[in-house]
Amino acid sequence: MKTIVAHAAKDLRIEAREMPEPGPDQVLIRMAAGGICGSDLHYYNHGGFGPIQLKEPMILGHEVSGHVAAIGENVTGLKEGQLVAISPSRPCGTCEYCLEGKQNHCLNMRFYGSAMPFPHIQGAFCEYLVADAAQCAIADGLSAGEAAMAEPLSVVLHAARQAGDLMGKRVLVTGCGPIGLLAVLVARYAGAAQVVATDIMAFTLGMARKIGADLTLNVADAPDGLDEFAADKGHFDVLFECSGVAAALSSAVPVLRPGATIVQLGLGGDMTLPMQAMTAKEITLQGSFRFHSEFFTAVEMMRTGRLSVDPLITHTIPMANAVSAFDLASDRNQAIKVQLAF
Amino acid sequence: MKTIVAHAAKDLRIEAREMPEPGPDQVLIRMAAGGICGSDLHYYNHGGFGPIQLKEPMILGHEVSGHVAAIGENVTGLKEGQLVAISPSRPCGTCEYCLEGKQNHCLNMRFYGSAMPFPHIQGAFCEYLVADAAQCAIADGLSAGEAAMAEPLSVVLHAARQAGDLMGKRVLVTGCGPIGLLAVLVARYAGAAQVVATDIMAFTLGMARKIGADLTLNVADAPDGLDEFAADKGHFDVLFECSGVAAALSSAVPVLRPGATIVQLGLGGDMTLPMQAMTAKEITLQGSFRFHSEFFTAVEMMRTGRLSVDPLITHTIPMANAVSAFDLASDRNQAIKVQLAF
Amino acid sequence: MKTIVAHAAKDLRIEAREMPEPGPDQVLIRMAAGGICGSDLHYYNHGGFGPIQLKEPMILGHEVSGHVAAIGENVTGLKEGQLVAISPSRPCGTCEYCLEGKQNHCLNMRFYGSAMPFPHIQGAFCEYLVADAAQCAIADGLSAGEAAMAEPLSVVLHAARQAGDLMGKRVLVTGCGPIGLLAVLVARYAGAAQVVATDIMAFTLGMARKIGADLTLNVADAPDGLDEFAADKGHFDVLFECSGVAAALSSAVPVLRPGATIVQLGLGGDMTLPMQAMTAKEITLQGSFRFHSEFFTAVEMMRTGRLSVDPLITHTIPMANAVSAFDLASDRNQAIKVQLAF
Amino acid sequence: MKTIVAHAAKDLRIEAREMPEPGPDQVLIRMAAGGICGSDLHYYNHGGFGPIQLKEPMILGHEVSGHVAAIGENVTGLKEGQLVAISPSRPCGTCEYCLEGKQNHCLNMRFYGSAMPFPHIQGAFCEYLVADAAQCAIADGLSAGEAAMAEPLSVVLHAARQAGDLMGKRVLVTGCGPIGLLAVLVARYAGAAQVVATDIMAFTLGMARKIGADLTLNVADAPDGLDEFAADKGHFDVLFECSGVAAALSSAVPVLRPGATIVQLGLGGDMTLPMQAMTAKEITLQGSFRFHSEFFTAVEMMRTGRLSVDPLITHTIPMANAVSAFDLASDRNQAIKVQLAF
Repeated sequence: MKTIVAHAAKDLRIEAREMPEPGPDQVLIRMAAGGICGSDLHYYNHGGFGPIQLKEPMILGHEVSGHVAAIGENVTGLKEGQLVAISPSRPCGTCEYCLEGKQNHCLNMRFYGSAMPFPHIQGAFCEYLVADAAQCAIADGLSAGEAAMAEPLSVVLHAARQAGDLMGKRVLVTGCGPIGLLAVLVARYAGAAQVVATDIMAFTLGMARKIGADLTLNVADAPDGLDEFAADKGHFDVLFECSGVAAALSSAVPVLRPGATIVQLGLGGDMTLPMQAMTAKEITLQGSFRFHSEFFTAVEMMRTGRLSVDPLITHTIPMANAVSAFDLASDRNQAIKVQLAF
Repeated sequence: MKTIVAHAAKDLRIEAREMPEPGPDQVLIRMAAGGICGSDLHYYNHGGFGPIQLKEPMILGHEVSGHVAAIGENVTGLKEGQLVAISPSRPCGTCEYCLEGKQNHCLNMRFYGSAMPFPHIQGAFCEYLVADAAQCAIADGLSAGEAAMAEPLSVVLHAARQAGDLMGKRVLVTGCGPIGLLAVLVARYAGAAQVVATDIMAFTLGMARKIGADLTLNVADAPDGLDEFAADKGHFDVLFECSGVAAALSSAVPVLRPGATIVQLGLGGDMTLPMQAMTAKEITLQGSFRFHSEFFTAVEMMRTGRLSVDPLITHTIPMANAVSAFDLASDRNQAIKVQLAF
Repeated sequence: MKTIVAHAAKDLRIEAREMPEPGPDQVLIRMAAGGICGSDLHYYNHGGFGPIQLKEPMILGHEVSGHVAAIGENVTGLKEGQLVAISPSRPCGTCEYCLEGKQNHCLNMRFYGSAMPFPHIQGAFCEYLVADAAQCAIADGLSAGEAAMAEPLSVVLHAARQAGDLMGKRVLVTGCGPIGLLAVLVARYAGAAQVVATDIMAFTLGMARKIGADLTLNVADAPDGLDEFAADKGHFDVLFECSGVAAALSSAVPVLRPGATIVQLGLGGDMTLPMQAMTAKEITLQGSFRFHSEFFTAVEMMRTGRLSVDPLITHTIPMANAVSAFDLASDRNQAIKVQLAF
Repeated sequence: MKTIVAHAAKDLRIEAREMPEPGPDQVLIRMAAGGICGSDLHYYNHGGFGPIQLKEPMILGHEVSGHVAAIGENVTGLKEGQLVAISPSRPCGTCEYCLEGKQNHCLNMRFYGSAMPFPHIQGAFCEYLVADAAQCAIADGLSAGEAAMAEPLSVVLHAARQAGDLMGKRVLVTGCGPIGLLAVLVARYAGAAQVVATDIMAFTLGMARKIGADLTLNVADAPDGLDEFAADKGHFDVLFECSGVAAALSSAVPVLRPGATIVQLGLGGDMTLPMQAMTAKEITLQGSFRFHSEFFTAVEMMRTGRLSVDPLITHTIPMANAVSAFDLASDRNQAIKVQLAF
């Protein structure tokens, strides 16, 4: 079967691998759709990011869906042909963090397509994949592309839970890549009274408006655009910081109300923050990283038909054209979410 | 000016009172709409409820809106003619509970239309009312009737906050009176994955479906209707118990997931509960009573246009016909929310 | 090896079982101490409780400690001879509740000494036990008896976490059996401003005072003893209800402050509660059931030397005299915690 | 009567002011003790800090206690001669933040001895003070010096509540000035399993050990002293950052467990933080600022006799020697808390 393997920066190959077989409690899946994520792009464009670097060939991909092709022993509740979204989160279940229900911090996590441990954890951009039945969420009624959006949606659901109840809250989203746009969608879905989004690109801001942002600000054009919200100690209750850019976070502090929560999703480097104002306003800065059980909630929410991620899937490209798909996904002026079709 | 005064059970009179004048930090309001609440109906039909009984004539009403008619000294931010929703919550601001931000438990609360202290706290079913400017939420863009729904909506927002984040949760609502129906509306608005409502009346259940319930169950017809949700220790994450009927609560326990939250809004009497199951499933039973700062959030949410309470206002009746309005409001087969027009 | 097996009410036998051998990730433990719990007493005295009844012989016991006797493959961090406290909590790790970090609600839980599934889950009152290394908490510096107290202490730590921060809070404990007394101890340890305990026995109340209760009330002698705390809507912030008696809970409602939390640990039957007062005061009634990762925290806390459970271990009796140990443990006038020595 | 007035940097004068008289709901207090706080020292040594600068003479002081000397109309519950701790927190009670129970963020706060608004809010280092009865906590059984410690203790209680339950948690405190030392005391009191404190001064670290720190590290001598706690993604559950120094915060990140909480009390300037690690570990950075209702809890906790702040009061100096008291308080090598006696 064919797979998409990153060897080094700008060295992406379609390679054959052995066909896997499902063991007990497992299923074989004929893969359907796979979204290209920012981390996939880092491996493709730069060979990694920060301390995380490719040291051996690695199959990319962790936003995936497919159809059940064969069912292993003991598996109940799944049937052949069924569309499933596949969670890439595979914690050990026995370390101290797993015991505490913080599986996303598992000491022995095997998240698809991660170069962090060595040997690397191979990803899911394959024609066939064997997964534990427990990783599979039934996606009846969704398209394969929507099912493959369960993963980034889970990231945002997990983040939204860090912020608590969003109903009636005023929400600011900085950075309108796929994660930021999902944050707009989720904030709207969760009953935010107002959703304001910022970015430096007209294209992504247009998408933000299309999916429900009340107001968008191009902070490249108008760096002081948020100033109107600074009166009476601030306006927003929640900031989803999805850009990873220090200026986005620090320039938002004056427009956050005392007691506001910043959920930091963007993974940038060191950031210089206005700590005196953050302390005096008792702002909570809360990191959010991946997800775990939210994956199943994400699929359930999409299946209700009330949360549509469709507009964010701007391109679907056959596996054979993977390199051009990765190039396209790297262009924030044209693409939001690019998915591969296997 | 005219007011609506309860003297005793079934003794409701339209009486004249002195025209009030606004002092500093106050406004005079020409009243527009007033919703009849369950407690108003208790005074009208029974002279009170439980230990709370009419001991002197009392103006009823606490779900009200009107137009600013005159502005007292020091008031800023309000102008003549403007529609405002008026919060009936008037805590003292200095007792131990006010200091802790639990103003709804104020030791010296003066909530409109309450027979609890003596002399009673007079209500707001009047042609004119003087209120503190701080009680007034600007309702631009709403109808007078919608503005008067801010109060019951606040009750439900407060309750929803007890339950925390509803996004992606499965919500059960027992009892589809005005409060239960607002709970359906709010759960839907806050991104619940599923909303199921129960009652014993076809009329109210029809309204529940109309405003967004996924499924309704008439528990008079099908007392075991919830049983399908009992597998795997239960199905629902949150129960808004709005009936005040013990059977509604206790019959829901088997279909609540471990760790679920029951928000108790219905005010019934003593209830016999299956405590062993509630303990073993670690269910949280959380009382919810009135509201405070949620009033302003309620108005803000309605003004976004995304939460419409309009379908619940089934009747609007002139003040002169108050008695027939109260009779109509007492009939759960015809009316959801009956409002008076002043 | 010898084990303590319940066959039916009042039919407790010392029986031989095959010596177990540790597999990979497991250890063999030579058992040292085993505390007799209320559920053990139910099996011994009545053959079960409510729907949970003995249907086949079952080894009792789940509050246990011992010394590592042999170490299976892959186990690191434990060495022969070391004293360990052994967690009886064995969730499956893959069901929906395990995924959510609610392992105490695992659909496939195998908690030692439970007659709930059939075949029953055999307990740990044995001379030797094989356990997963992940169940073992190193107990260096503790006595075997103290280590065996980790289990009931975990129950109370889990319950205390339901109540949130106890520092500066006023705490009421109803029911001074082993769990209630541990609640007194933990509330004191966690910085409660005041701890008041009630029971109907002079003996247990004397112990409550000895371990730190500020005030105790014998509610058999003085049913109205709490009345002095009812002014200004109540006095206590937290109630640990450890008696399982409805009257204990309902009579406490008037002395709880608005917004107070009741943590229900006692497992009684149906209870009739004053729901109107509970709702109007926005009281939280929170069930608490078993524990999971708290087990390791419990051992860590005892090992600091700042929390001493020693006074509660009133009797230690050789395994050979198990029947008299169970009789003694059934007498609330003489015994708090009776432990077996293996 | 005499007062202590700051005119500019290093210009502190003892000046006479008119004797005040209590109005309704107020009391006149003959002041007893007043602690010198870091902000008082900033005014004394530098004329202010950051944007907050003296623009007119201002009486300093906000950590105060005294004896009731006269009682205004309507006051109940206080009697002449009684020792009271006086809360310096005077919010308006009607702004949006007060309505939400966030009085410490009041838009119209009049906190004693603050140069932030102009005219400045005069402080409480006076021979006599008129205060609202609602600001006064009865301090029977405490010394005047202890009562004056209620204010900084409240700051730390408020901070501790941000961190949630500390029982069984591993706590790191960076910076052992009066606030850091109170954090050590409170963490110990609240049942922390371990308390580790860092500073750059042997004197303050000695005090930390004296009042209960399990381990202290002089990070001037051993910058890598915390490294031993970095295994398995970290060791500490909570960090109270009391130094206001960026390096203290950033060097602690590797030794914090995933999901840990940093409570930021120290008011430094901008800080550069390792945001990638903070996000990936889902660390919560929570600012904490002042307090409100915690003041009364602080006094109640000291009155139980279980929390002793006495060791931190290193010096008590007559009002007449105010200048030398301020100089002494500025020397971290000799003094922890210096109090004035009026």
